[in-house]
Amino acid sequence: MANLGPGRPRLEQRRRQGTTPRAEILDAAAELFTTKGYANTSTRAVADAVGIRQASLYHHFAAKDDILDALLAETVAGPVELAQRMMGEPEDAATQLYALALFDVRQLRTARWNLGALYLLPELRTERFVAFRRRRDELRAHYERLTVESAAAAGAGEDARILPFRLVETVIAIRYDEGAAGVDTERVIPDAVLRIVGYQGGMGAVRAAAAELLARLSE
Amino acid sequence: MANLGPGRPRLEQRRRQGTTPRAEILDAAAELFTTKGYANTSTRAVADAVGIRQASLYHHFAAKDDILDALLAETVAGPVELAQRMMGEPEDAATQLYALALFDVRQLRTARWNLGALYLLPELRTERFVAFRRRRDELRAHYERLTVESAAAAGAGEDARILPFRLVETVIAIRYDEGAAGVDTERVIPDAVLRIVGYQGGMGAVRAAAAELLARLSE
Repeated sequence: MANLGPGRPRLEQRRRQGTTPRAEILDAAAELFTTKGYANTSTRAVADAVGIRQASLYHHFAAKDDILDALLAETVAGPVELAQRMMGEPEDAATQLYALALFDVRQLRTARWNLGALYLLPELRTERFVAFRRRRDELRAHYERLTVESAAAAGAGEDARILPFRLVETVIAIRYDEGAAGVDTERVIPDAVLRIVGYQGGMGAVRAAAAELLARLSE
Repeated sequence: MANLGPGRPRLEQRRRQGTTPRAEILDAAAELFTTKGYANTSTRAVADAVGIRQASLYHHFAAKDDILDALLAETVAGPVELAQRMMGEPEDAATQLYALALFDVRQLRTARWNLGALYLLPELRTERFVAFRRRRDELRAHYERLTVESAAAAGAGEDARILPFRLVETVIAIRYDEGAAGVDTERVIPDAVLRIVGYQGGMGAVRAAAAELLARLSE
């Protein structure tokens, strides 16, 4: 209410998450894209939901697909950064794979909006989203590298190479179908990832080692 | 071309899969929904793609969501029927779970259009699609029942109860991202399903038993 400033007052009081107009736009768009659909949402509707004029929105994002691109980037930035940082750490591949899966399940599960539900939109196949697709491919490559190393250490084959990345992303469908993915998915899915790669060690030990690794890297 | 009959001729020659107008409409709609997006596709566009008038389309489907509902129903009808038929068979739960996963991966993988990519649309949350959602829940319940029984037989807990159904549906994302899901997914995914439930037996034996079960039931 202290924020009227010059120009037209906002249509609604601020009710958005985010401390900047840009963050508020992203939050409103994420809600509309995931609840009404991307194609069904106009930039006008996003501006209305934030309580700003469309012209103000265009000051931050030139087009609707720029908003989507920014939202999608958030869904992979954290796990990609973690995977990169882990490469210098001494923990074995199974521990790192567990830690990555746990971190990624958690962020997909607890993000305010279930943006992964947009991954299968035909719109994402266009040239506009090539940077996002490459970034997600990068994350996928980290999963595959850790999967192959974990399987080799367990004396198993590489058959399941592509599956841990896919299994982690099932959190998106669980959230969609059940309204939420329970905190137990942060244990159940990483456990299943290790079973798929043929991990034979004790699950309690790897859970503890992965938690410690994540705590150390988040310091 | 023998099919002009009375009224306006078709806009295009028949190029659709399907031997009936209804099947042609479904095929055209499936292509447009998965490549252009559901919200971006009008019934007019579907009629144009089939080469019929919009009025003719309405003779088969009263609205666009009726077409989507019919398409979605096809994606679960086969595995639900299989799961029901298996209930009277003597094979153990692990074999039946393997057979269901194999059958379902195969049908999701080889269906002409990747319709599962529409499962996460916000439109599907509406009352209109409650029958489809119930049918898919039915399939999910079959997976969970077989998962719990398989885990119990293996002396494992029920932690992974929800995951086999989810893992099978990852074929949809694989198809989306890679353009196709290879035939190897028909082995790799069911294998991973059994590993998740703690199955300790030989994978070769269960593969053979599942294949025999499927062959017997498809006679």
